[in-house]
Amino acid sequence: MSDIRPVFYVSDGTGITAETIGHSLLTQFSEGEFQTDRLPFVDTPDKAREAAVLIRAAGEQAGVRPIVVNSCVDGDLSAVLATSGALMLDVFAPFIAPLEQELGRKRQPRVGKAHGIVDFDQYHRRINAMNYALTHDDGMRVDYSDADVILIGVSRAGKTPTCVYLALHHGLRAANYPLTDDDLESDRLPPRLRQYRNKLFGLTIDPDRLHQIRQERRPNSRYSEMDTCKREVAAANVIFSTEHIPVLSTTHASIEEISSRVLETLGINREMY
Amino acid sequence: MSDIRPVFYVSDGTGITAETIGHSLLTQFSEGEFQTDRLPFVDTPDKAREAAVLIRAAGEQAGVRPIVVNSCVDGDLSAVLATSGALMLDVFAPFIAPLEQELGRKRQPRVGKAHGIVDFDQYHRRINAMNYALTHDDGMRVDYSDADVILIGVSRAGKTPTCVYLALHHGLRAANYPLTDDDLESDRLPPRLRQYRNKLFGLTIDPDRLHQIRQERRPNSRYSEMDTCKREVAAANVIFSTEHIPVLSTTHASIEEISSRVLETLGINREMY
Repeated sequence: MSDIRPVFYVSDGTGITAETIGHSLLTQFSEGEFQTDRLPFVDTPDKAREAAVLIRAAGEQAGVRPIVVNSCVDGDLSAVLATSGALMLDVFAPFIAPLEQELGRKRQPRVGKAHGIVDFDQYHRRINAMNYALTHDDGMRVDYSDADVILIGVSRAGKTPTCVYLALHHGLRAANYPLTDDDLESDRLPPRLRQYRNKLFGLTIDPDRLHQIRQERRPNSRYSEMDTCKREVAAANVIFSTEHIPVLSTTHASIEEISSRVLETLGINREMY
Repeated sequence: MSDIRPVFYVSDGTGITAETIGHSLLTQFSEGEFQTDRLPFVDTPDKAREAAVLIRAAGEQAGVRPIVVNSCVDGDLSAVLATSGALMLDVFAPFIAPLEQELGRKRQPRVGKAHGIVDFDQYHRRINAMNYALTHDDGMRVDYSDADVILIGVSRAGKTPTCVYLALHHGLRAANYPLTDDDLESDRLPPRLRQYRNKLFGLTIDPDRLHQIRQERRPNSRYSEMDTCKREVAAANVIFSTEHIPVLSTTHASIEEISSRVLETLGINREMY
């Protein structure tokens, strides 16, 4: 007997849709009381029966009814899963009828299509964007003529993970340029960036937090000293302000939130992968 | 008047949850007839009113009723959005009542929490995993003692984007090692990988597809020749089979699907970021 309730994200595909909405739902209740697990690629009656047995057993072991967040498109599979006795939350079911009525036709159930590969062009764009982000990381290559966006900021302000996210999920050619001591002392945008002004987005961060991050990376170095962090952040903020570059503080923002703000600010509308 | 129906992913946070489920829903109807747009960070009545005006205008311009996929937690904001006249699909609403009943208590609406930063430890794990993936990409560093998983395969089989995805979304230290000519000729696992056997996962690919991908990268090179692709893939498959390494074909798989299969096969259960 335990207080931890088993939650299963079940899907005929990757389970990403089920897990995304399930996670969002659970964060609206208390944390720490759920034990989550994913059961992807449940795409046959046999696999659904196996899953149902596993879910039922987890509930019996925990002494509490499991919750299933289910994104199987095939209703027959969902019916099999329901034999587990779990609380069934069907991710698509509530929306299909209103959509069918609005659009005036039936859906075409396509299993696991949401995160499957369909379009080679789209796939190439995504992979090429990823290559671009990795080769234009941290000022490695500074020809930004093909860039969709260029993130600038001091070292460890969050540029690299944001670029990788923008490439992976939006197919953007996202470069990043670290503001160096020379740049920071001049109080102006580095000359090589000026021609790309409309692609620039600045990331700033609280010096305290920057100090903490840099300490993890290079403890007790000049790089991580509180004074260095304060000076660099202040100088970067002067550049952003003087040059009218849009800026966001990453101190309390997730990678997803930074990415979403960048897209919104630069007016870039790209479907998410 | 057009046949393209405007769809808005509206959220008080990043909108990722709304877009994920909305995209999955739309793929179950015809493609190409929806014009999607995201309206993130709609977290005040004023912003909701602005959004409603914009949505209504888009519907009037298109001559067809818009669809709103809404993940605002605050019901008052949703009510304002509904004044747009759009078909409202509320991502959370259908699941809150059953969950409240099952858990025996009310939810605590927490705006934009699903993809916001909460836990510094979790954030560090994610960033450190990303650094690990970037420094252990493509055989750059081959000390894999800290790796959670090591992807192996021929060049351009899909290793790098999968490693980045696993780092970004699951906080995994994911390394990758490209099988070189020397490795492939020996028909055996490279000696440096043998001690990490239980962390290995092989990626294979159809030679036709590999040829196509390599042609884009280095056209008409020895590297991209059909014969080279066939020989390399065959030799890699011999190694996977001889050494009993789990293997997946990436030919028709998305990055998400490859990642999900890797986690499932290696029995790694990590919450998704």
